[in-house]
Amino acid sequence: MAAFDDLMLFQRDTEALGQVAGRLGWDQETVMPRGSAEQRGDEMAAISGVLHARRTDSRLGDWLAEAKAPDATGEAMLRHIRRSYDRSTKVPARLAAELARVTSIAQGKWAAARQDEDVAAFVPVLDEVLALKREEAAALAGGGDLYDALLDDYEPGAKAADLEAMFGALRPRLVALREAILGSAHQPATLEGHFAETPQMEMARTLAAAFGFDFNQGRIDKAVHPFSSGSGADVRITTRTDESDPFNCVYSTIHEVGHACYEQGIAPEYALTPLGQGVSMGVHESQSRIYENQIGRSRPFNGWLHDQMTEAFGALSVSDAEAFYGAVNKVKPGYIRTEADEVQYNLHVLLRFDLERELVAGRLEAADLEEAWNTRFETDFGYPVDKPSNGCLQDVHWSVGLLGYFPTYSLGNVYAGCLMQAIHEAVPGVDEALAKGDTSPATTWLRENLQQHGGLRTPRDTIEHACGFAPTEAPLLDYLEAKFGEIYRL
Amino acid sequence: MAAFDDLMLFQRDTEALGQVAGRLGWDQETVMPRGSAEQRGDEMAAISGVLHARRTDSRLGDWLAEAKAPDATGEAMLRHIRRSYDRSTKVPARLAAELARVTSIAQGKWAAARQDEDVAAFVPVLDEVLALKREEAAALAGGGDLYDALLDDYEPGAKAADLEAMFGALRPRLVALREAILGSAHQPATLEGHFAETPQMEMARTLAAAFGFDFNQGRIDKAVHPFSSGSGADVRITTRTDESDPFNCVYSTIHEVGHACYEQGIAPEYALTPLGQGVSMGVHESQSRIYENQIGRSRPFNGWLHDQMTEAFGALSVSDAEAFYGAVNKVKPGYIRTEADEVQYNLHVLLRFDLERELVAGRLEAADLEEAWNTRFETDFGYPVDKPSNGCLQDVHWSVGLLGYFPTYSLGNVYAGCLMQAIHEAVPGVDEALAKGDTSPATTWLRENLQQHGGLRTPRDTIEHACGFAPTEAPLLDYLEAKFGEIYRL
Repeated sequence: MAAFDDLMLFQRDTEALGQVAGRLGWDQETVMPRGSAEQRGDEMAAISGVLHARRTDSRLGDWLAEAKAPDATGEAMLRHIRRSYDRSTKVPARLAAELARVTSIAQGKWAAARQDEDVAAFVPVLDEVLALKREEAAALAGGGDLYDALLDDYEPGAKAADLEAMFGALRPRLVALREAILGSAHQPATLEGHFAETPQMEMARTLAAAFGFDFNQGRIDKAVHPFSSGSGADVRITTRTDESDPFNCVYSTIHEVGHACYEQGIAPEYALTPLGQGVSMGVHESQSRIYENQIGRSRPFNGWLHDQMTEAFGALSVSDAEAFYGAVNKVKPGYIRTEADEVQYNLHVLLRFDLERELVAGRLEAADLEEAWNTRFETDFGYPVDKPSNGCLQDVHWSVGLLGYFPTYSLGNVYAGCLMQAIHEAVPGVDEALAKGDTSPATTWLRENLQQHGGLRTPRDTIEHACGFAPTEAPLLDYLEAKFGEIYRL
Repeated sequence: MAAFDDLMLFQRDTEALGQVAGRLGWDQETVMPRGSAEQRGDEMAAISGVLHARRTDSRLGDWLAEAKAPDATGEAMLRHIRRSYDRSTKVPARLAAELARVTSIAQGKWAAARQDEDVAAFVPVLDEVLALKREEAAALAGGGDLYDALLDDYEPGAKAADLEAMFGALRPRLVALREAILGSAHQPATLEGHFAETPQMEMARTLAAAFGFDFNQGRIDKAVHPFSSGSGADVRITTRTDESDPFNCVYSTIHEVGHACYEQGIAPEYALTPLGQGVSMGVHESQSRIYENQIGRSRPFNGWLHDQMTEAFGALSVSDAEAFYGAVNKVKPGYIRTEADEVQYNLHVLLRFDLERELVAGRLEAADLEEAWNTRFETDFGYPVDKPSNGCLQDVHWSVGLLGYFPTYSLGNVYAGCLMQAIHEAVPGVDEALAKGDTSPATTWLRENLQQHGGLRTPRDTIEHACGFAPTEAPLLDYLEAKFGEIYRL
């Protein structure tokens, strides 16, 4: 028991320091003075150094060799620490430092290339990033699949082959649905008008409260990019406002509230342990997406939201609840992943997943990326990419070394589909409550069946435990076809 | 050179982590959600543990033994690190932990005792604190004076005997001045009215800018207690508002801006080195006090401030500049140190200095503190203490183990007196500029002659270098007698 207890005590401080580093990130995006950025870089480097030293501390190896967990919860804690220690120690310090250096340069070059619509200016540094990521993957994979080794960082236990099967089933039906929608004679109206910032931020707070966000252990601020940060008793989200499009603020807020409620919903006894955070990117995204889409863009909830927005902003250009529901769920052609609707979003992700697998395997070179992107885009979306900032330069991810991250977005959507099916089967009166702005039947079920367990189970088992069935893409597809078939009268 | 360079690299991260810990303190007092306090305690403990481990790291001993400084600046850096390392390693870990534990309890008991006006409830735990502080002092003093050993933590190099001589000269003339003022037939009017929070906070920003606060590397927020936090490129202050007394916000702001401008004024090449922070509490207080009092409560500056406040709040109850100047500098009987004016403030501090020297020496017991306090108060102020919250329970300091801290407040006032005399001798047109709200002749002199040097010299040498003469209490006394003699027509 001594080794286990010593390890947990050490880990507790590591978790607490991780929270401190996260808070520093929040500060940087919300309240930090403009001219403090350079010093902040030194501060972040210092605390990152402390965290890295703790995560590779040789005492961890000794404790892990000796520790005996007292129960299944303890076993789960050891599993997380062992996994982190193994991964951290497999990557040579020289390689980690080189990755940090090159991705920092690459991010700057990516931003400039996007600005200048100049893919060629980004290709050489992307080549460098890819070479280093392949080296990292090889160190982690121990002879196994390189892409799986990278994916595992964001979605522990997930395998590219499984995702490929799942996404392979999604793609043709989504392409067909997208075509049918855009070809339909019935097209919902768009919400138009001017929406002042102050009532938008009030609406954000109203929505957060409606979804169960705990303001006593969290806060909402404005920032350039919406995000959720922190775990346990201090979870902070940001949102943004666009005075010509209030849905930007509404759905950014609900999305981040989904992430935040997951963190706030984890059992308090897991706080500052390896179980005290959302278990993976995919499961995290399942929470943000089910809050945002399956609940937040549902017909019953939209009825309530229509009333709230009419009260906040006066009569809307879409003046009845049905037109409002159509406006919320309107599908428009577009190039940008982050602006995509429920139907097209996954097509954007699938494109990136397939391309980055080729990049990691070395079957696609950085120099050929633009052509591959544009060809695939036209195949799935039906029209050509007009410029690189609308194509292969739109996302920051690859420049900073995030390879294996994109698929977790669609995995989250698939999981959200499964969870919503389970909720509808298990909980009576969900829609009736949503029509009154009461999300609690749905969110309480999520808290009890998924959120509270934090990192207790693997990501996939977390979903299966909550749903009672192994996750598949079918519920998401059925949901999308039914919902949009009705809206677009297909 | 290798040892020196290694040491500086290590120290740089320590300084950066110190900034992170400070930022966490700022967060706690300004933006932290209410319900996050317990987790924040764990986070603070974790980063404090990291800092303590770095400050007592045995490699420091090796580096310090080997390091050769390349120049005088390097020598000064080594001096700071050596001093910190010596102090940190002299106090046994067991004693440091016990002090942390007992003072945490004592602070709670002090707050309750003050609330209940019950000195007896505080005496036993104060006894415990005193016993531990004496033990700490003995460990630090190495046979020398116990009080000096504690004082040295806040004012390196200062000696109680020197302060005693200085304060001994202050006390009788301040007591006499106080009596003359309160006995004068001429009493200035008080500013009355209602002052809304929003224009008060706007005024705070105007004043900060007028004193040279750099908003590009700093910010101002509201908090319960005004404070300044951070060094280098990220210095943040807080202020507060009282809708019946705008001077509370005005002078809290100017005071904290003084602290902040000292930090912002330090040469950028000292950032994240041991020289990159204000050199001592006394020198820090000299900057906050000269900004607040010698400049901010001066007749010429008050003329400008009167116009500003009339513009912000409409016609004032003290409608001419002379009456306004009287209201700003009005001396009223009172019990509370933090609310005291320039004349009485030091009498409050001198009382505490004399009592805490007796407490540390063991010549005064906690049980006898209240009587000693009340006797001394009546001697110096002319009327008895009415209740413990207005007497020996008013300050938090002793409960949290801050013994040797109080005298730095008066030392700061003495230093401010010296600095203002030097400015008047060295800089032409200071008052003419202040009359237009332009503090730059005075503040530029302070930046060039004092602030930029950070921790390069000892505290006393820092003042002497700036002034060109050894600091004494005479300029402060002369200034107070002249200023208040004129206002009160003595």
